Amino acid sequence: MKKEIRFSSGLHLYGNTMDRFVGGGYKANRTIDQMFADAATVKDLEGVELVANWHINENNVNQIKELSKKHNLAITMVIVDIFTQAKWSMGTFAAKNPAIRNQAIEEVKKYLDITAQLGCDLINLWFGHDGFDYSFQADFLKAWQDIIDGVKECADYRPDMRLGIEYKIKEPRTHLHIGTLGKALALLSKVNKNNVGIVIDVGHALAAYENMAESVALCKLFDDKMFHLHLNDNYRAWDDDMMVGSVHLQEYLELLYWIKKVGYSGWYSLDVFPYREDGVKSADESIEWLKAMIKAVDSVDDSEIEAVIKSGDAVGALALIRKMLFR
Amino acid sequence: MKKEIRFSSGLHLYGNTMDRFVGGGYKANRTIDQMFADAATVKDLEGVELVANWHINENNVNQIKELSKKHNLAITMVIVDIFTQAKWSMGTFAAKNPAIRNQAIEEVKKYLDITAQLGCDLINLWFGHDGFDYSFQADFLKAWQDIIDGVKECADYRPDMRLGIEYKIKEPRTHLHIGTLGKALALLSKVNKNNVGIVIDVGHALAAYENMAESVALCKLFDDKMFHLHLNDNYRAWDDDMMVGSVHLQEYLELLYWIKKVGYSGWYSLDVFPYREDGVKSADESIEWLKAMIKAVDSVDDSEIEAVIKSGDAVGALALIRKMLFR
Amino acid sequence: MKKEIRFSSGLHLYGNTMDRFVGGGYKANRTIDQMFADAATVKDLEGVELVANWHINENNVNQIKELSKKHNLAITMVIVDIFTQAKWSMGTFAAKNPAIRNQAIEEVKKYLDITAQLGCDLINLWFGHDGFDYSFQADFLKAWQDIIDGVKECADYRPDMRLGIEYKIKEPRTHLHIGTLGKALALLSKVNKNNVGIVIDVGHALAAYENMAESVALCKLFDDKMFHLHLNDNYRAWDDDMMVGSVHLQEYLELLYWIKKVGYSGWYSLDVFPYREDGVKSADESIEWLKAMIKAVDSVDDSEIEAVIKSGDAVGALALIRKMLFR
Amino acid sequence: MKKEIRFSSGLHLYGNTMDRFVGGGYKANRTIDQMFADAATVKDLEGVELVANWHINENNVNQIKELSKKHNLAITMVIVDIFTQAKWSMGTFAAKNPAIRNQAIEEVKKYLDITAQLGCDLINLWFGHDGFDYSFQADFLKAWQDIIDGVKECADYRPDMRLGIEYKIKEPRTHLHIGTLGKALALLSKVNKNNVGIVIDVGHALAAYENMAESVALCKLFDDKMFHLHLNDNYRAWDDDMMVGSVHLQEYLELLYWIKKVGYSGWYSLDVFPYREDGVKSADESIEWLKAMIKAVDSVDDSEIEAVIKSGDAVGALALIRKMLFR
Repeated sequence: MKKEIRFSSGLHLYGNTMDRFVGGGYKANRTIDQMFADAATVKDLEGVELVANWHINENNVNQIKELSKKHNLAITMVIVDIFTQAKWSMGTFAAKNPAIRNQAIEEVKKYLDITAQLGCDLINLWFGHDGFDYSFQADFLKAWQDIIDGVKECADYRPDMRLGIEYKIKEPRTHLHIGTLGKALALLSKVNKNNVGIVIDVGHALAAYENMAESVALCKLFDDKMFHLHLNDNYRAWDDDMMVGSVHLQEYLELLYWIKKVGYSGWYSLDVFPYREDGVKSADESIEWLKAMIKAVDSVDDSEIEAVIKSGDAVGALALIRKMLFR
Repeated sequence: MKKEIRFSSGLHLYGNTMDRFVGGGYKANRTIDQMFADAATVKDLEGVELVANWHINENNVNQIKELSKKHNLAITMVIVDIFTQAKWSMGTFAAKNPAIRNQAIEEVKKYLDITAQLGCDLINLWFGHDGFDYSFQADFLKAWQDIIDGVKECADYRPDMRLGIEYKIKEPRTHLHIGTLGKALALLSKVNKNNVGIVIDVGHALAAYENMAESVALCKLFDDKMFHLHLNDNYRAWDDDMMVGSVHLQEYLELLYWIKKVGYSGWYSLDVFPYREDGVKSADESIEWLKAMIKAVDSVDDSEIEAVIKSGDAVGALALIRKMLFR
Repeated sequence: MKKEIRFSSGLHLYGNTMDRFVGGGYKANRTIDQMFADAATVKDLEGVELVANWHINENNVNQIKELSKKHNLAITMVIVDIFTQAKWSMGTFAAKNPAIRNQAIEEVKKYLDITAQLGCDLINLWFGHDGFDYSFQADFLKAWQDIIDGVKECADYRPDMRLGIEYKIKEPRTHLHIGTLGKALALLSKVNKNNVGIVIDVGHALAAYENMAESVALCKLFDDKMFHLHLNDNYRAWDDDMMVGSVHLQEYLELLYWIKKVGYSGWYSLDVFPYREDGVKSADESIEWLKAMIKAVDSVDDSEIEAVIKSGDAVGALALIRKMLFR
Repeated sequence: MKKEIRFSSGLHLYGNTMDRFVGGGYKANRTIDQMFADAATVKDLEGVELVANWHINENNVNQIKELSKKHNLAITMVIVDIFTQAKWSMGTFAAKNPAIRNQAIEEVKKYLDITAQLGCDLINLWFGHDGFDYSFQADFLKAWQDIIDGVKECADYRPDMRLGIEYKIKEPRTHLHIGTLGKALALLSKVNKNNVGIVIDVGHALAAYENMAESVALCKLFDDKMFHLHLNDNYRAWDDDMMVGSVHLQEYLELLYWIKKVGYSGWYSLDVFPYREDGVKSADESIEWLKAMIKAVDSVDDSEIEAVIKSGDAVGALALIRKMLFR
């Protein structure tokens, strides 16, 4: 494995999880201290992501800094909370209520500042409620324009910080406006700011019937815009947020090759929801899979891989994967 | 509309809703009194379903009876709680831990008794956690046999009560054992008890790429086993539990015709999750849609509908639907 | 119905159809004369689309002109054949074989000229084989760049003609590069030619889990790029090319409203594959549905619809649709 | 690898392929002699399946016997042609036209006799056109009863022969009646004949969101009814009929373990459609993958695998797969 690969994970892997049926949670609630302590025991983990209000707020910034230092875990990204509270349920940047829209933009600005204080230059914008469920519910033109304008305003507020847009096709709304890699690229073509890019969550790509490697490649082609990478797996119908290695091995090998090929230098960050599993073990196993898969990809010379890709030969491609795995 | 059509709804329509992101809920928590009072305002609603532990438990049976009487709302079904608590997360009737399996069976028996006290003869068994997420996690043979045996044991405990199995293909596990209409029928062929049947949730049918009307018809063909009907809608990829009328109108018309044709005499019960909507209004609008659709179906003579079905002519079928809607 | 709505259909509706199992076709082969004669009997049909090599080639241009005149059917678009022959099976503009790529580009130029001769200014580019099936088979960066460059070259060849890119997520390849509305917009942002736009096939939108109306609206927002519209329906999992009116009525109403709202002035063109149905009847019934749905949308004042959209209220949206259909 | 594993393939792998766009085929047409000669070059292949009318008919039975003998390739199954001709397009056993229904039943009887002459005791019944596309098109009760009765009649005609029902959820109709494993089991519960069982096509299982291993296990539980196995892969949305090894490795390992566990003694038969690939190479690569995966499964003691399954531990299950692949 190359030296430069650094693993991160969401801090939520070590907390409680719930869903609409098990409202009390599948586990017990955990403190920030406990979650950091857990993360520190994950082998090869060098950083954590935080979700605002779940993990960080304006009052515990120093605590986070200390925990980060104490456990030698970098803060790799802060995910602004525009999705965990009922007030955001009808949208944020695309909220029809201008007061809510303003609140959302102010929230982003606030966390741009807070994140900078943590020595991290990247926030995540996931527009989980900016979408619609029913026909005749959305004003597509206004919603998109409002998102474009809001992102520009936030980008201008802190040109020294980077804003990563995380697209997702559905959940919690049945339809999210910024739903696919293609739509995220289209959004960026309108936003046109150097400090705005894309967070690829591979589970979101799978749920949108994207090939994960093509999504990575297109970020490269469209101005090298892949700012961050979320790793997990699912069965394509939903964002199951399963452990890495659980379903899509062949496509994961291709993904890992293309991440290397495009020269991505960011974090390999786990976004797993271990409802019924131990968080630390889920992270450990996911990283073991990533290391094993990266090693499998690296076991074949890039020139040989490139020759297969150049040929476009399906049988050769399948034989290549077989060689990576079963030699 | 025929006289015999009676509308029911889950009591949860009038409560709070949450999901994995908005753990605090999209709304405020509500008392049982409030939820019953809300239900009583829904036009043409004659009954409610209860979820055990959310709405009913061994300590509030009398309160429920009083509320039911006060608001003139029949208790149409009790859904046994084998899914809202963390202890069920690795399964119930198919739990690998025998103690948990026993608890689940005892819970069902307990609610058979409680439900009988309420003057209702129907409980719902939804095996939401009896499934698996990962390869090599499930013992399919044992799980199925354990479910078969458990259902038989419960059916024998109260032959005067009816047990409705509600199948669902996924959520909250990525795979549920009793996932489709076909699997539910196969299960019933092994269980072989008169008092065990099927609850068709049309959203579950849609999510499994079933034609809702075919699912109803097959329950008829396989020993008239449709015990209860859950109504909602979704985009087929997930159990969105949207209001009736939101997505699949043409297939809903066919469904409503076949429900009439097979002589179903049970409740038309709403199972909607109004995350962002008012519960009462959601129920009202859903019932308005049902009444309008039933009227549209009834506007064409059954003999004319049967002639189209007998012909198998696609253009004729589409013209028939157009006639129902746009005459 | 507004005067300006003009209906067109693919000429293939009146020909034979086949699939991988029924290689001899579901019907008999038909001559061009027969297909035009059939199209002429479809009520309210004012134009037809042609697929190159299926319907038009360099040798029958005059015949086509005469048939068009004789039957008073405008030629609304010519779909260049970069998908019906085995030579295109490994791609066209993104073919790894440069000779094939050149042939494809020359083919497009040839049909730009031929189409102009027919008095039509629009060709369709559907990159049905420019994609991949297996991991490690595609060179995403080169494929996309080759498509971008090829489209630019063709656009420059005839600035007086318009080129409509028809996106599709899968079939006949398991993955097509230009797969979604978002990716088509991203492509256009690189191509950057006035005479290059998008053909929205609503079945392709549905198969990509797009809301059809949002796809139309985004074409408006991104430089008014909707050049043409293909109408049909499906069950979202595949491009079933069913008759209009068969599955998605509520979303179709929203689509038709937004088409009107964005001021689209092009054709409403049927792209149905009537494998087991009569072509003329399929077209007639589809147009009857379109007219009925348009009338339903127009039956409510735009201001009332806009008020609902502005509110974002789901119950109001559903009541609006109910009013359109069941008043 | 255990001795008893025997590989077969459809003879169609070595023929031409087509689809609705490339009607002339992706390749050249091949003679039966050529296809057998090709099959004979596939390493470790010991048998072939035939599709009636594509490969076998009443006039070439002796030729087939000679080719089978000459190339030392057993005839592993004959797939009765109730799907390649236009006359079957509105159904066969469930055809509304009684004359067509009778023809279909006679066709099956004829091929029961022909197949017996070939020294093979297994025919395949795939009801590819017995389904529907549009709402109000199907008479579900009659269709199912007609299929049940027809299968019984055919089973009684030759009790010495076995009839394998191959279920599939869609294609070429948008909905097939015998669509899922569950529905096939329900059908069998009504047919109730010893010589009627199930053909599991793993691609059909995947397209129906089944876990392939659970499908195999349920055939065991329901009277050991797995008669035959079709191997391929896809992306779950469609029956892509890709080479084995292309997409679902982890689930394939589980499948192969369960096939062993339930004691299946039939053929491992390839059903791949190599549209753009060489047929022999596709078969070779698929078999190499199968052998490699079987070896990986066998590399871990069954007792260790059983311990993981018994635990139900997801992390342990994933670690087990990692051990199989990356030790």
